[in-house]
Amino acid sequence: MSPFDPSHPGKTLAALGEERLIAAIRRWLGDATPPAPAGIGDDCAVIPASPRPQVVTVDPVIHGLHFDDSVPPRAVGAKLLKRNLSDLASMGATPRAALVALTLPPRTRIRWLEHFYRGLAACARAHKLHIIGGDIAQADHTLAASLTLLGQPPAGARLLTRAGARPGDWIYVTGTLGGSLSGKHWRFTPRLPEGAWLAAQPEVRCMTDISDGIAKDLRPLAPPGARPALDAGAIPLSAAARRAAARDGRAPLDHALTDGEDYELAFALARRADRDAFARRWKKRFPRLPLTCIGCFVPTQKNLPAGAIDLTRHHGYEHLRATKSEP
Amino acid sequence: MSPFDPSHPGKTLAALGEERLIAAIRRWLGDATPPAPAGIGDDCAVIPASPRPQVVTVDPVIHGLHFDDSVPPRAVGAKLLKRNLSDLASMGATPRAALVALTLPPRTRIRWLEHFYRGLAACARAHKLHIIGGDIAQADHTLAASLTLLGQPPAGARLLTRAGARPGDWIYVTGTLGGSLSGKHWRFTPRLPEGAWLAAQPEVRCMTDISDGIAKDLRPLAPPGARPALDAGAIPLSAAARRAAARDGRAPLDHALTDGEDYELAFALARRADRDAFARRWKKRFPRLPLTCIGCFVPTQKNLPAGAIDLTRHHGYEHLRATKSEP
Repeated sequence: MSPFDPSHPGKTLAALGEERLIAAIRRWLGDATPPAPAGIGDDCAVIPASPRPQVVTVDPVIHGLHFDDSVPPRAVGAKLLKRNLSDLASMGATPRAALVALTLPPRTRIRWLEHFYRGLAACARAHKLHIIGGDIAQADHTLAASLTLLGQPPAGARLLTRAGARPGDWIYVTGTLGGSLSGKHWRFTPRLPEGAWLAAQPEVRCMTDISDGIAKDLRPLAPPGARPALDAGAIPLSAAARRAAARDGRAPLDHALTDGEDYELAFALARRADRDAFARRWKKRFPRLPLTCIGCFVPTQKNLPAGAIDLTRHHGYEHLRATKSEP
Repeated sequence: MSPFDPSHPGKTLAALGEERLIAAIRRWLGDATPPAPAGIGDDCAVIPASPRPQVVTVDPVIHGLHFDDSVPPRAVGAKLLKRNLSDLASMGATPRAALVALTLPPRTRIRWLEHFYRGLAACARAHKLHIIGGDIAQADHTLAASLTLLGQPPAGARLLTRAGARPGDWIYVTGTLGGSLSGKHWRFTPRLPEGAWLAAQPEVRCMTDISDGIAKDLRPLAPPGARPALDAGAIPLSAAARRAAARDGRAPLDHALTDGEDYELAFALARRADRDAFARRWKKRFPRLPLTCIGCFVPTQKNLPAGAIDLTRHHGYEHLRATKSEP
């Protein structure tokens, strides 16, 4: 469904106006938003005190960039939240509350927005978090939504960051990679239980989620003086990566390394960890999600091992480039 | 300065790309952003535990709506933060940390964005808060920034909400109203010390800030079964409201009631409060900022007192209307 309906202005936001729109949003969100001041309806939302540290992240979905008319509006609302849930998962945190800021052209269909909010609310309920606030503003040419997500570690648990890997540590990824454009980019499941479990394993040193392609997203995990050496044969290719490769003639591996929007987790495991025992524990806890060791961090001054991927020849998704080619 | 430079693509974001842009943003923010994971650079930002409740709000600035080419980019960055600070002020809260999500056309001038971030950082430093995270995404037709602000009440203090007024309570506003378009909309000072002081006065029942015009912003303060009865002669008209009226032939009062973007505070004082003593305490604490009693809440079934403003004849700024007229 296109978000816009130029031929029926009576069915668009222009006919509704702000006050009735806000009332409608409350209705669409239902019990996913609590009464003010804990939810929508005051100058700020109030969050109860908590003895734990908080984590917070913000990510958008923009029409034409993160979704197009082929993605159902409910899935767009869910994707907005899931992108942020994936960031929380990568720290081992659990979600608490979210705020949503939208820019909307007046020609936006009311029905499109209703399904967007219903999809967002359903996803919020499924993850036991509240939509506590937001903003709507007019932008004549861009439909965009930005979600700020607050969370915290499970009681007594640590938060994993991107820092902490050491040279020699093993690199792992969950799931399979590549070809997300054919559907995974909005059908994915954020790896929240997996992230929380991994943060509780002492041999896991650091973690991130794969949003721009592992060729790019692994870089911040590399310890100073080291770089990733990935085994080309070990990268878990998705069926979608193979299909995309068959269509465009690029290598399936290149899709897996650079497509982005996999929303899988990548992490470093301590060099001396018992990898077999770790794999067995994973398989017992998450029997249906593959976990793959794809390489390790090697000192920068050493040559890459034979067969290792030269990541400088693969680029993940880079935002804000006028062209895809490097300067 | 226009944010865009179509004739010098080498001076725009298209020439910079995401990675160098993020490095530049860190440089522009300087010590306004702490090292990750407390600041920018990880999947989430980590906020230390606090024994107090938290408040959170989100508000944008959009090119063509909240600012135009006449507003200096530093002031745009500051305005983005100040709009949200005003929401915190209206609850009596103090700021802690902020996240900024931008949508940027690739033709955005690097220099414009630098000044935007430097203005944001200077304002953050002045208010002793950190910019802890954010996101940048490409939108070809809309330059917009959305800021999420986290805060908390001062130690031991209450948070004021919009609820709590009773019929008969007095209505007050800080400062003067109207004509903000001539400059106040970006030169204003968020009323943070005033808000915190007011929240500490037991006779203040509820509070909000004036962003869309008091004709609209007072509505949520009205207790069930009551409405505002404002004394037309008491509304504190700004010099800018008078100038705007001289230009467009509308009444200065209409400007004061409906222009919006005043970012003053409006609050209800208990009916039986000692108003003289309250005014003296205010004047001692804030000798330079006018405080004005503009009316009171009267039961809906009673007629408005003679000389009271009929607010149904004045409309504050309503977002997302294709036309300014009512349906």
